[in-house]
Amino acid sequence: MRRIVFVLMAGVALAGVVAYMAPASGQADGEAAPIFVTAIPPGYRDWRLISVAHEEGDLNDLRAILGNDVAIKAYREGTLPFPDGTIIARLAWSYNPSEENNKTFGRPQSFVAGPPKSGVQFMVKDSKKYVSTGGWGFAHFHEDDGKPADEAMLKTCFPCHQAIKDRDLVFTRYAP
Amino acid sequence: MRRIVFVLMAGVALAGVVAYMAPASGQADGEAAPIFVTAIPPGYRDWRLISVAHEEGDLNDLRAILGNDVAIKAYREGTLPFPDGTIIARLAWSYNPSEENNKTFGRPQSFVAGPPKSGVQFMVKDSKKYVSTGGWGFAHFHEDDGKPADEAMLKTCFPCHQAIKDRDLVFTRYAP
Repeated sequence: MRRIVFVLMAGVALAGVVAYMAPASGQADGEAAPIFVTAIPPGYRDWRLISVAHEEGDLNDLRAILGNDVAIKAYREGTLPFPDGTIIARLAWSYNPSEENNKTFGRPQSFVAGPPKSGVQFMVKDSKKYVSTGGWGFAHFHEDDGKPADEAMLKTCFPCHQAIKDRDLVFTRYAP
Repeated sequence: MRRIVFVLMAGVALAGVVAYMAPASGQADGEAAPIFVTAIPPGYRDWRLISVAHEEGDLNDLRAILGNDVAIKAYREGTLPFPDGTIIARLAWSYNPSEENNKTFGRPQSFVAGPPKSGVQFMVKDSKKYVSTGGWGFAHFHEDDGKPADEAMLKTCFPCHQAIKDRDLVFTRYAP
């Protein structure tokens, strides 16, 4: 297990850790507006798998939804609402036909993950900090430069996720 | 990290562990034919993600490819051939349209993982034990009862995987 811990830490610049530990600094000035997650949670690429999906249309990607330990435990035990500390990550990649696989299967049927696409998104549960958005902090980081999306985009997350109130605003179901 | 260790162990019946420790028992009678993996590697659902894919046609599934620690390290460092101890798992689920997601997106575009489908497959690297199949032991376990596929099916794995000799018989590329 030491290797996992090492990988979790190795992928994270110190600056990132510090920023992640204090994402609520925007509150210091008494701002009551929605608060968003401003730094990529460290080590998310090492988290366990919740499920997979494909979006057609403008998105046209293959996606994986990963969860930190708190998220995976809650999913497997059916805990709702998700406890504070839950973080759910949505990764996505270009939806690429695989000529290599098709040749082996003998027919065009195979689509695999290409380069990262559609950004990386997170939902971070903190029922006190994110009280105005159902206890969830929403985040979107661009896949090219890792920079967070602007507030105008992030403000669109919560209204849509409210459609899934009975599952604590989380669309993705656990894939057994 | 204790939680991960616990989950890894909790999912495994003792009989399964014992069977996994001795998959080469078929060699005792001097049989030189291909040897296949006869027990599901413990804890594989907790392994880290290598990539995702979608197969159309008869398979019609969404899939995730996971790797144990040895596999993930080799992928990230570009190590070829994969070292002994590498295990790669291929999970798959029914390719289900999500009415719930489509309603939110405002268009039919979303496909998510349904019930398990297409079995669970593994490639286990042991260059001595599986010398007749490129150092890889192949495995397929049915998603309904967890039983291994018969030898006739497993014998079809190696010939197709030989198409990818320059990547040590492994089709899946790491999704960053």
